[in-house]
Amino acid sequence: MKTILILGAGKSSTYLIDFLADSCEKKSRKLILADLDLSAASAKLKGRPGTHAEQLDSGNPEKRKSLISQADVVVSMLPAFMHPVIAGDCLELGKHFFTASYETDGLRKMKAEIEYKGLFFLNECGLDPGIDHMSAMKIIHEAKLKGEEIVAFKSYCGGLLAPESEDNPWKYKFTWNPRNVVLAGQGTSKYIEKGELKYVPYHQLFRRLETVHFPGLGDFDGYPNRDSLSYRQVYGLENIPTMLRGTLRRAGFCSAWDVFVQLGITDDSFHMELPENTTFRQFLNAFLPWHEQLSVEEKLAQLVPDLDFPTFEKIQWLGFFENRILPKTKGSPAEILQSILEKDWALNPDDNDMIVMQHLFEIKTAQGLKKVTSSLVSFGKDSVYTAMAKTVGLPLAIAVDLFMERKIKLQGLYVPVLPEIYEPILTELEQWGIRFHEETQWT
Amino acid sequence: MKTILILGAGKSSTYLIDFLADSCEKKSRKLILADLDLSAASAKLKGRPGTHAEQLDSGNPEKRKSLISQADVVVSMLPAFMHPVIAGDCLELGKHFFTASYETDGLRKMKAEIEYKGLFFLNECGLDPGIDHMSAMKIIHEAKLKGEEIVAFKSYCGGLLAPESEDNPWKYKFTWNPRNVVLAGQGTSKYIEKGELKYVPYHQLFRRLETVHFPGLGDFDGYPNRDSLSYRQVYGLENIPTMLRGTLRRAGFCSAWDVFVQLGITDDSFHMELPENTTFRQFLNAFLPWHEQLSVEEKLAQLVPDLDFPTFEKIQWLGFFENRILPKTKGSPAEILQSILEKDWALNPDDNDMIVMQHLFEIKTAQGLKKVTSSLVSFGKDSVYTAMAKTVGLPLAIAVDLFMERKIKLQGLYVPVLPEIYEPILTELEQWGIRFHEETQWT
Repeated sequence: MKTILILGAGKSSTYLIDFLADSCEKKSRKLILADLDLSAASAKLKGRPGTHAEQLDSGNPEKRKSLISQADVVVSMLPAFMHPVIAGDCLELGKHFFTASYETDGLRKMKAEIEYKGLFFLNECGLDPGIDHMSAMKIIHEAKLKGEEIVAFKSYCGGLLAPESEDNPWKYKFTWNPRNVVLAGQGTSKYIEKGELKYVPYHQLFRRLETVHFPGLGDFDGYPNRDSLSYRQVYGLENIPTMLRGTLRRAGFCSAWDVFVQLGITDDSFHMELPENTTFRQFLNAFLPWHEQLSVEEKLAQLVPDLDFPTFEKIQWLGFFENRILPKTKGSPAEILQSILEKDWALNPDDNDMIVMQHLFEIKTAQGLKKVTSSLVSFGKDSVYTAMAKTVGLPLAIAVDLFMERKIKLQGLYVPVLPEIYEPILTELEQWGIRFHEETQWT
Repeated sequence: MKTILILGAGKSSTYLIDFLADSCEKKSRKLILADLDLSAASAKLKGRPGTHAEQLDSGNPEKRKSLISQADVVVSMLPAFMHPVIAGDCLELGKHFFTASYETDGLRKMKAEIEYKGLFFLNECGLDPGIDHMSAMKIIHEAKLKGEEIVAFKSYCGGLLAPESEDNPWKYKFTWNPRNVVLAGQGTSKYIEKGELKYVPYHQLFRRLETVHFPGLGDFDGYPNRDSLSYRQVYGLENIPTMLRGTLRRAGFCSAWDVFVQLGITDDSFHMELPENTTFRQFLNAFLPWHEQLSVEEKLAQLVPDLDFPTFEKIQWLGFFENRILPKTKGSPAEILQSILEKDWALNPDDNDMIVMQHLFEIKTAQGLKKVTSSLVSFGKDSVYTAMAKTVGLPLAIAVDLFMERKIKLQGLYVPVLPEIYEPILTELEQWGIRFHEETQWT
């Protein structure tokens, strides 16, 4: 009897747990779900046969290793910084290792030993990274088999609200880690377009937008992710003239977010100690120049000359022009902003989320240039069975299942860009309604 | 016979060395000048009696400590990162320590031991920091003695070109460390104005300007330094409503420099590997969006909407619109920019530099509000006897001399904000033509 250990029973683990727990009995497997919060883990298992919950502080190496040593396969849904630690344990104890997170240099250093020990370590097998790689590689491999040349590949993904839940001017709420959302895009973003390498500093990022359209859903803003260049190698497109990976927000979001960026309110590099009774308006004013006569609103309009009413309204809706007391007065500007947004962008119990992903390919064929648009839309069912949890958790769960069924027979360190990994996963995902809609246009 | 050890015979040590070397014979002192480049050190000493040069790689602790142990007083003109090391040696070997650089946390940790050992460690005794502290504290102390209240203090300093050498559109050349000039202002700048704390992100810094006027010299751009707030405590002005320290450039410089900032060309956080034959124009274009029809010039005008001709001309003068090959193609954007500027902003042998400093005080008196403007202008004599070397080196040399003459009798860790330090130094500086011009205006 084989044992799966899942580390982390948080929001994004719901579908993963269900998928693997449901089949334990039938497939004669054991499932251990470990979390800091034992009752949360127990609740998610719902007493299914073959499963049990464990309390684990993942910073405790003894308990962690004792659990890992009982497993054959370990799935880490812990925060990303824990993955190298868990991977190290798995390597030491000879266990297979799965995550939905980025393959890091720390992991890459383990490659030779993973191979030597005959283990299978699969990373980037969630949504983004995950489904993006798999669905893109399917199109890339098919084109290459036909002798076609991919001359442009842009890929966008966003974790957003289902249209019926877009009940604030930002059309946005947190369906994912708020801190990551506030800090998104910091650093320099790199991509290539028509053979020209492009570098976008953070303070230009939310102005360097492309409009991405989804039939039936309307327009979205797409801005470049930090590193699009390294994926040329991952995807075997070393010489592609155009390659960009980006993030989607509802049209209009980025212009308003850019106001915070321009002011420096997303800065996480220094600590503020504001008086307890500092208001939203005073906080905003701290990032504006002093002026004898001009109001906060007027100074803002001077500093952001293209400030239009839809943008103004979004800032206003968050209360920034009011004499209301800040929810938090000590911390970096980004932390204080996050404390504000966590109240206003909290999901209501009846809100549904939505995942949108779109690949835009330009492919040179014998018949001419072909534009292929491949789009995925996935809606959440409720605040537990979210589209985010589904699209992150199911690919990983399916990969674990396929590996345990010996339908994936690889050894080594992988991301899901090989047909033997992505084909069975994509097929199974279609059964769950996660399917891309493809449109081809000849020019 | 007492011995002075000067570490570093670089450009900014000229006046310091001359001042201390000239008096060795008369004052029965020995002077050791140590530098990586022995012949440069020897040349600067000019065989004056009582002086001799030593070759020193300051990373070599044995030789370094052997030299320090021969000295009574150590003056470090090494790069700032070496100061804590030298200070540590001085503490260990019981030697007094002098620099023109910022007092750092590393130094502050040594405070108790410095006092315990009865040593005198003086930092920030150059120009900025240095003369700025001393001249400001003189005014602050005088006002306090009269029972007046200082309600605003802005202080600006710039190391620039003498007007006769302003022969390029930037009216700027490197008279100081080029890397520091390229990276100047990165981070978040903090100051307080009329009781409002103000935070300026780097990408707004070169737009948050004040015009600072020097009679006979004209207008300068002043932008805030990174940390103006901590000087409230240093100057004993904890409750002052307005406090700003800033840097001066010739009027128009900052708007043009801001183009580089907006594009991300001053970014030092990532490495570029450009093809060997990359041109200036292509380098600029890498920071601009791709466009089917628009030229580099047109895209730049779109990205920087307030781009006027004087700014355009400055960028153009550096060759950024030309198909000339870059002098350096591997490195951070900031490093590549620096390689360009080092050619175009190099001082000619007959160029003279200029130091400008201005304090602007608003002081509440029994007679009403008094505005005091205190300005210093110092011109270089040639490319060796620069205003920078004079204003950095002389205060430090004078401090060493006064200490050795027991005219400064303190023990402990100091910056020159006490009358017993700054008064005799300012008096002596006046003999050297370093004197402030004060104007008072009643409102």
